[in-house]
Amino acid sequence: MTRWVVGVDIGGTNLVVGLVPVDGGPAEGVRSRATQSERGADAAVVDIVRLSEDAIAEVLERHSATRADIAGVGIGCPGPLDLDAGVVIATPNLGWANYPIRKRIADGLNLPASLDNDANCATYGEWWQGAGRGVQNLVGVTLGTGIGGGMIVDGRLVRGASGSAGELGHTTIDFTGRRCACGNYGCLEAYASGPNIAARAREGVAAGYESVLAELVGGDLTLITALTVYEALVLGDKYAHEVMNETAKILGAGIANAVNLLNPEVVVVVGGVTRAGDHLFGPLRSEVRRRAFPSAVEACRIVPGALPETAGVVGAAGIFVAEHLT
Amino acid sequence: MTRWVVGVDIGGTNLVVGLVPVDGGPAEGVRSRATQSERGADAAVVDIVRLSEDAIAEVLERHSATRADIAGVGIGCPGPLDLDAGVVIATPNLGWANYPIRKRIADGLNLPASLDNDANCATYGEWWQGAGRGVQNLVGVTLGTGIGGGMIVDGRLVRGASGSAGELGHTTIDFTGRRCACGNYGCLEAYASGPNIAARAREGVAAGYESVLAELVGGDLTLITALTVYEALVLGDKYAHEVMNETAKILGAGIANAVNLLNPEVVVVVGGVTRAGDHLFGPLRSEVRRRAFPSAVEACRIVPGALPETAGVVGAAGIFVAEHLT
Repeated sequence: MTRWVVGVDIGGTNLVVGLVPVDGGPAEGVRSRATQSERGADAAVVDIVRLSEDAIAEVLERHSATRADIAGVGIGCPGPLDLDAGVVIATPNLGWANYPIRKRIADGLNLPASLDNDANCATYGEWWQGAGRGVQNLVGVTLGTGIGGGMIVDGRLVRGASGSAGELGHTTIDFTGRRCACGNYGCLEAYASGPNIAARAREGVAAGYESVLAELVGGDLTLITALTVYEALVLGDKYAHEVMNETAKILGAGIANAVNLLNPEVVVVVGGVTRAGDHLFGPLRSEVRRRAFPSAVEACRIVPGALPETAGVVGAAGIFVAEHLT
Repeated sequence: MTRWVVGVDIGGTNLVVGLVPVDGGPAEGVRSRATQSERGADAAVVDIVRLSEDAIAEVLERHSATRADIAGVGIGCPGPLDLDAGVVIATPNLGWANYPIRKRIADGLNLPASLDNDANCATYGEWWQGAGRGVQNLVGVTLGTGIGGGMIVDGRLVRGASGSAGELGHTTIDFTGRRCACGNYGCLEAYASGPNIAARAREGVAAGYESVLAELVGGDLTLITALTVYEALVLGDKYAHEVMNETAKILGAGIANAVNLLNPEVVVVVGGVTRAGDHLFGPLRSEVRRRAFPSAVEACRIVPGALPETAGVVGAAGIFVAEHLT
């Protein structure tokens, strides 16, 4: 009889839950809703428990299974986290602090629970069931409001001494560069996160570059987002193409660093920006090839994620399996 | 009865060998000679075998042991290497190519042998018997003609998919920066290796900065090396202090990247430049603190190596122990 784990992916924008078979497989009963984190962590936990119970009911019925077949719940959440204590220390994207998220969700569902950060979960999901199946060394890069990272080394997720390993977005690629929200200067995230892609596009349009971007936002440049850049790209806009190309080159410098340091078999890039497809991956791969060592480049595939909506859910569940069931 | 492993550290300048107890301890019978790699790899192997036999004879006699107590030989060599085949692929610092170094030394000593790259060996030595004993996560940085790196993650040396992991010297810290010998732009090594420290110092002196440096080299600025900068520093030279300070800040950016990615308990920095002591480590620690995440910085000590001449020998032997005897 198949057993199941609930996967919970807590994002700044959406909560997503689903059930994943203990032995691996796609998420089932997936559902989501807006996080609305400003209502506080307790309200989000109520939503998560409700979504999870709905997902559990649906999957149990479909598979004629019983509640005893639910082994636990894996939770992914933006950090920084105290992994041992299961606590959100302080999450700028959510506004929660010192909140015992693991215990609250475990109590709400009456299930054992695990907690890890969102980028680790997405990375683990793509490694366990997605674009990186079967390899021993993998780097995951999550492109969104921020840039996150996760690493599998010799078949194991790397957490580091205090659970904060994988912060690829806050590696310096320009030591005299622009200030990042984290306080550092010249971070990868300060150039290539969604909002910073949009900011760079806005700057160019404001400076007079010819582009369909202004039209797409009805002339209000403040409305330009990374998605608008993608839309302009699809319409064949030359300037949007330039912005994406520059983004890919900057990302390429950061990813080349991870390739030279970790020599992975796969770099899997996930997040909305990857919809740009070859417009992103073409120049990205070229830049990594230009910068990293040939032996490391030859050993490495750079690919988009295979689980676009559910990598975090699948990975959160997978980490529960690894921690509690193996 | 103690058993022993021969450690061999092949450097661009010197060959160093010594014997290390299988259960750990300082290297004994240590001896070295100039590599003179231009005589070819076969000649170097003859020297290595002779040095090793001398070291073995000395240690066996001192401990009233017999040849059967020598378990094998661990070799450290600049890369790139084919670790599986035990072959030097192409080593710019030595000029050797496609040379089966592991087999030749194994045959010469009639002992089983292991091979790993020099920075991995120095890192492993400091972790096993030096400044990083007892931790689970460590980053090693070797400062010399080049900048190398090695990583221990969850108690194991990281080699990556094709054995080239750890190339911290060739991570980009300035994506529009100066060209590095590796072909990339803005590598850490392009700023902070020994020759590049000297080059930056020379540039300043040539541009008219007041300094004792010119005097130390009898006016011939081409003779300035990183060691000259250190000597000037000891003499209280203000400009040499500035050069070291700048070096520390640049190294700090590169090391902060490793700290944010890997969240190690210890970063151990080895090589001649570390003789600058607090002149280097003071500003280096400040810069890492300024750039990396507080939780990662707080978890991490940044320290000089504890085995200044023998980290490579001890580590090469330790890797043999890990691969063949455990």
